[in-house]
Amino acid sequence: MSNSPKAENLTWHQTAVTRTDLEKLHGHKGVTIWFTGLSASGKSTLANAVSVALYKRKVSAYVLDGDNVRHYLNRDLGFSHEDRMENIRRIGEMARLFTQAGMVNLTAFISPYRSDREMARQLQPESFLEVHCAADLAVCESRDPKGIYKKARNGIIKEFTGIDAPYEPPDNPELRLDTGVLSVDQCVDAVLDLLEQHEIFIIR
Amino acid sequence: MSNSPKAENLTWHQTAVTRTDLEKLHGHKGVTIWFTGLSASGKSTLANAVSVALYKRKVSAYVLDGDNVRHYLNRDLGFSHEDRMENIRRIGEMARLFTQAGMVNLTAFISPYRSDREMARQLQPESFLEVHCAADLAVCESRDPKGIYKKARNGIIKEFTGIDAPYEPPDNPELRLDTGVLSVDQCVDAVLDLLEQHEIFIIR
Repeated sequence: MSNSPKAENLTWHQTAVTRTDLEKLHGHKGVTIWFTGLSASGKSTLANAVSVALYKRKVSAYVLDGDNVRHYLNRDLGFSHEDRMENIRRIGEMARLFTQAGMVNLTAFISPYRSDREMARQLQPESFLEVHCAADLAVCESRDPKGIYKKARNGIIKEFTGIDAPYEPPDNPELRLDTGVLSVDQCVDAVLDLLEQHEIFIIR
Repeated sequence: MSNSPKAENLTWHQTAVTRTDLEKLHGHKGVTIWFTGLSASGKSTLANAVSVALYKRKVSAYVLDGDNVRHYLNRDLGFSHEDRMENIRRIGEMARLFTQAGMVNLTAFISPYRSDREMARQLQPESFLEVHCAADLAVCESRDPKGIYKKARNGIIKEFTGIDAPYEPPDNPELRLDTGVLSVDQCVDAVLDLLEQHEIFIIR
């Protein structure tokens, strides 16, 4: 190995593609849209519907939700308070990376605690739009697509958000939608308006 | 809350943008290029140089390395064997998400153990290209940009890969580059050739 050439003559210096470069390539800004709300309040449905609407506008958008995160990146985590916090922390970090990559990323997690959401926001305060899916508990419980509210009411599931664990609604979300009353299309339009207001589609 | 309307009449079903949709939008496939090699072997430099070359071809590419991962997503992890494994696991999961989002993602981590890299590969075996930055230890040590080899030799840093901790070179990487001899441009060209071979630029 001592015969290996020294490498000082080779230009091994750092070059990089910046967030702004990628935003120019994609034709829009990177941003996190953070959906929060009770189970069955429509977070994941809405996030996916928005991603479809954005795709039609040629916007590069990606949904992070239980289906692709909880069982993979965060599969080592349970549901203790500490693990829930770590779950949200990692999702926040991942969201930040997608924003840095110039993508619109939509996170759909209950994220019941204000302090956790605030932590995620502080990772990228200028690129974080919080959307509260504010369907009433009664509506969510009547939907109950996986029968989990029933299990929570029967005590089979413990510490279930909205039943025997708290949900702390955001005080000042960028958008609050009554997803128990509005249609998906109405909610999608409201999120698109929010993105317009924040000039996500405008590249300076 | 009992007065809230039932929501069965609202179309809260799931729609989604697929990986294939995003690949069409971006005009190329999503893939992980996994750079592995000793400290100072040029992984991060090469990953960034490739991302710049790809950007010039209008390819959406993003580098994951120590600068944006170790101190953020994985800041809770140390350097025990268990933590190193968890570090690579999370990076592998994150890489998979970027691939799913239709982006070329380049990871630049020492990732010294075959079993860890194999774990990352198995998360997305059809979209994982391993590139061994195979500069000799002597070259890496002579570069030593952060003075860490010196500290490892002096025993100030323990369990340093290549000095008193093993580096297990890949048996069958998709590409092996002697990054101690080749120029950055030569290496970039070789990686671009690899992507051509794997038809990353072709959308079917």
